[in-house]
Amino acid sequence: MLIERFKGGDPRALARIITLLESGEDFPEELRQLPRTARVIGITGSPGSGKSTLTDQIIQELRNLDLRVAVIAVDPSSPFTGGAILGDRIRMSRHALDSGVFIRSLASRGALGGVSSKTLQVLSALEAFGFDVILIETVGVGQSEVDIASIADHTVLVLTPNQGDAVQAFKAGVMEIADIFVVNKCDLPGADRVVRELHATVTLGITPDWMPPAVKTNAQKGEGIAELLQALQDHRDHLGEEGLRERRLHRLRFELRSLLEDWAQGRLKDAENQLPEVLSGKRSLHELFLSLF
Amino acid sequence: MLIERFKGGDPRALARIITLLESGEDFPEELRQLPRTARVIGITGSPGSGKSTLTDQIIQELRNLDLRVAVIAVDPSSPFTGGAILGDRIRMSRHALDSGVFIRSLASRGALGGVSSKTLQVLSALEAFGFDVILIETVGVGQSEVDIASIADHTVLVLTPNQGDAVQAFKAGVMEIADIFVVNKCDLPGADRVVRELHATVTLGITPDWMPPAVKTNAQKGEGIAELLQALQDHRDHLGEEGLRERRLHRLRFELRSLLEDWAQGRLKDAENQLPEVLSGKRSLHELFLSLF
Repeated sequence: MLIERFKGGDPRALARIITLLESGEDFPEELRQLPRTARVIGITGSPGSGKSTLTDQIIQELRNLDLRVAVIAVDPSSPFTGGAILGDRIRMSRHALDSGVFIRSLASRGALGGVSSKTLQVLSALEAFGFDVILIETVGVGQSEVDIASIADHTVLVLTPNQGDAVQAFKAGVMEIADIFVVNKCDLPGADRVVRELHATVTLGITPDWMPPAVKTNAQKGEGIAELLQALQDHRDHLGEEGLRERRLHRLRFELRSLLEDWAQGRLKDAENQLPEVLSGKRSLHELFLSLF
Repeated sequence: MLIERFKGGDPRALARIITLLESGEDFPEELRQLPRTARVIGITGSPGSGKSTLTDQIIQELRNLDLRVAVIAVDPSSPFTGGAILGDRIRMSRHALDSGVFIRSLASRGALGGVSSKTLQVLSALEAFGFDVILIETVGVGQSEVDIASIADHTVLVLTPNQGDAVQAFKAGVMEIADIFVVNKCDLPGADRVVRELHATVTLGITPDWMPPAVKTNAQKGEGIAELLQALQDHRDHLGEEGLRERRLHRLRFELRSLLEDWAQGRLKDAENQLPEVLSGKRSLHELFLSLF
């Protein structure tokens, strides 16, 4: 009956299923076969870069186009979790009367500090529910900002002018994940400098033959949002059907790896009380390894 | 016969077995039961901190005590591999006539950019061969310096005075792995400042109730090596039998995880050509996942 309500488009059924997924239940087999057409957009950047406000503006713009939008706010760093959930509530209340918007914070942490397999299952549920666009917002810490690029069709990396050497501010491998750069808070001094810095430094990213553009926004005032959506559309056009398919294969690969990692973590835990036998030489580690399957 | 020669203490048999392990052969079952008493010391630090020279001096000092010493130089970063292998050859030639010293460079890379399960098998082979001390030297990049602390009985982190804000120079989580800090090149200005900085910043590390000491060395001139060996002995005494056992359980846990990761990597590769069927909806990802076992 929960499944029927979900299929009928009841957002409370969706919320309930997400809660069940988070508590460790398996993804319902009946939902696996539902068609999925959502565009998945990853939004990442340093804390304080204004990602939430930007996400909010994107929601507004997509709603003006009558598209149904879901947001997953992934927050792998516990210090920020409180803030994310608070911000989440504020946003929730703003869109509370709009059944075309669904927002959920996930504080769960993957095995490697990145995006967990549970988050991927929540994403699957949102796809199966029939959203047109799913935004995944993550704070750029740990592994999550790199993971996001493995999941999303389009990855947006948010910078600000006051980030000092913005380009140097990111760990190796992070700049490369961006399909689109956003220089938010562009009313602050230095915005043009950051854009120039990006143009000078950035070469090709993940998408073949695509030079990631830098879009200036002022999310507080809603400026530059239309340009950002245009850049997303340009990237979509550039990907084409084949490129989009590649991205989705990549997401499946990532999801399969997450499932295997979860399994391995569980087996490691089970093996724990047998390690002393290996240490004492009673059995070999290889034997123990084989017994885990 | 190779195994018999190995058991008889033939270093060429050891070298051959290591080559076989590196090429992907399984660890020989006959060697699993051999007694292991080696002390495993991890030595890590930034490129240019003088780890190799320091290792060399430690070898010398241990040889003076008539202990048999093996060195594994792990180099997960291809740019430095050439240098490591060159340095390795120089060291090899210096100890070429000394059958109590065995040195081997491993350029292999773990699944996560850290220490690979092959490296752990080489370590097992060296233990089974009967070395008294095994030094594992790794450049402090990627995951390898954190991995080393999961493997070693004692972890030495090498800094230099000219490293600027030495303590800040390391990524989060790296300072914590040290059982002993070495401030090498202590004839350079700033050595005492780094020692003070360490004393001010460093709290407890991995070993319960152990405050990691900072030892000044000048490896080029052989100064401070005796003090470093004393610090290692102090740490050994502090660990006690129970602490040492904990370390070795931790190493087994790490090795088991590496085996599981290797397995998962292999299965992911095999699953690759079945991902399109999942994408097209012919089968579910969960089905594919279950079919991997």
